Amino acid sequence: MRFFETIQGVYFDDLDAFRILHNSRYLLLFERAIGAFWERLGWNRGGADNPDQHHLVRENRVEYLRPVEGVGEVRVRIWVEKLGRSSLVFGFRMLPMEEDVDYASGTRVLVRVDPVTRRPVPWSDDLRARLQPYVREPKP
Amino acid sequence: MRFFETIQGVYFDDLDAFRILHNSRYLLLFERAIGAFWERLGWNRGGADNPDQHHLVRENRVEYLRPVEGVGEVRVRIWVEKLGRSSLVFGFRMLPMEEDVDYASGTRVLVRVDPVTRRPVPWSDDLRARLQPYVREPKP
Amino acid sequence: MRFFETIQGVYFDDLDAFRILHNSRYLLLFERAIGAFWERLGWNRGGADNPDQHHLVRENRVEYLRPVEGVGEVRVRIWVEKLGRSSLVFGFRMLPMEEDVDYASGTRVLVRVDPVTRRPVPWSDDLRARLQPYVREPKP
Amino acid sequence: MRFFETIQGVYFDDLDAFRILHNSRYLLLFERAIGAFWERLGWNRGGADNPDQHHLVRENRVEYLRPVEGVGEVRVRIWVEKLGRSSLVFGFRMLPMEEDVDYASGTRVLVRVDPVTRRPVPWSDDLRARLQPYVREPKP
Repeated sequence: MRFFETIQGVYFDDLDAFRILHNSRYLLLFERAIGAFWERLGWNRGGADNPDQHHLVRENRVEYLRPVEGVGEVRVRIWVEKLGRSSLVFGFRMLPMEEDVDYASGTRVLVRVDPVTRRPVPWSDDLRARLQPYVREPKP
Repeated sequence: MRFFETIQGVYFDDLDAFRILHNSRYLLLFERAIGAFWERLGWNRGGADNPDQHHLVRENRVEYLRPVEGVGEVRVRIWVEKLGRSSLVFGFRMLPMEEDVDYASGTRVLVRVDPVTRRPVPWSDDLRARLQPYVREPKP
Repeated sequence: MRFFETIQGVYFDDLDAFRILHNSRYLLLFERAIGAFWERLGWNRGGADNPDQHHLVRENRVEYLRPVEGVGEVRVRIWVEKLGRSSLVFGFRMLPMEEDVDYASGTRVLVRVDPVTRRPVPWSDDLRARLQPYVREPKP
Repeated sequence: MRFFETIQGVYFDDLDAFRILHNSRYLLLFERAIGAFWERLGWNRGGADNPDQHHLVRENRVEYLRPVEGVGEVRVRIWVEKLGRSSLVFGFRMLPMEEDVDYASGTRVLVRVDPVTRRPVPWSDDLRARLQPYVREPKP
């Protein structure tokens, strides 16, 4: 299984009053890594010219393992934990720049929907093929 | 079981480019409800003069059920899903002002720690007594 | 001259690593006060069914007079510093709940624009009339 | 006069409901550029081991010239507009990646203070020397 990794800055405004990365910011860093991943797969940044781009966030889960102290940089690694018919579970790990000891891990569940009815519709075959190398648990 | 409910504003800067509440903001509204709950229980806002206030966020989980569209107000309802020896699971629901159909639901896991060693320590008896009415699943 | 005043919460996530309100958040609290002011004047929250609602922020200026320490509440007072043909300068002061000693003061310049061409167009007579009581320096 | 320029990402969560960079985020991108500048000058990120690092933001001013639409990258260019005895005015411009037509421009006023009394104290000679090449209007 392959993963996709980006480097994300942690800035002064991301820190809370304990000088650690505020718990809600992990979702932003994770979301930015997914954005960079879609670009890698050939999607337009922020655009929606591809039907698979019509999807909703169904769930976020973050487990905080040790605090990110002060400003600096972190690595955010993502992969596809599970690829369903119209759902998709991203897994992620947040890691220091020079160690493989997690700051945090988590998942995000997406569901592709029809832009008008907002009802679930299947991912395209093209997307399925592009995601395949990053899938951790391919359907048997 | 009792719950605690606050009204939270959703402002223009909380909306994303789809004019819905951005997925990361749910954690903030939930955190603010917990802050108001601690005050209700007699804690100083933002202070730390009570040993139980030394705790860390261990996990956040949010399930997005239907989007919060545009600015306005929402209700955030919280309760204690589980009260462990040194851990505490808050449950929450985000609801419209005039309906009982959830926008979102989720949990947050806290762990009380020693401020110096950061190792888990038990909640005080005083806190346990105050939380009791809000606990959904009391230990048998 | 009349002014319009709202009470705004300062939350844990608004504080920076020095436990004071982060300098960028003043703009948000100020923007929320303006939003409440438009509502008071009869506009729909977040809607755009009124042509005057098509306007852009041209400038923000904040002078920080003394830090807002810790979580709590502040008062944000706004008025119209100047009402031009297609521009509008809001003045604001941020104040503690129980004292009249400013935390901050500032201005925001808005310009009404045509939604399509984005070129400046004059405010409606109706808006001018509603704003009049709040204007500090009416044109001679 | 030299300037210092950084590239800053504009992410989905930075956009407002009009799909443009929210007006308050300019302050963050500007602040991050200043943070990178201090590092270039040899300061520790987020640290405070240098007495000049004890300073407060006294004023922010942003003029919005044309909207930053959608996600992507921008250049933030900073310089020293004015270097006083204990004050410092940074100037900034926000620019597209491939054009020299400003999105925004502005200034930030800082004041060096004594960490205990919070009263203004002069910048060190060392800092003055390091800032000199970036000063636009040196005192005569």
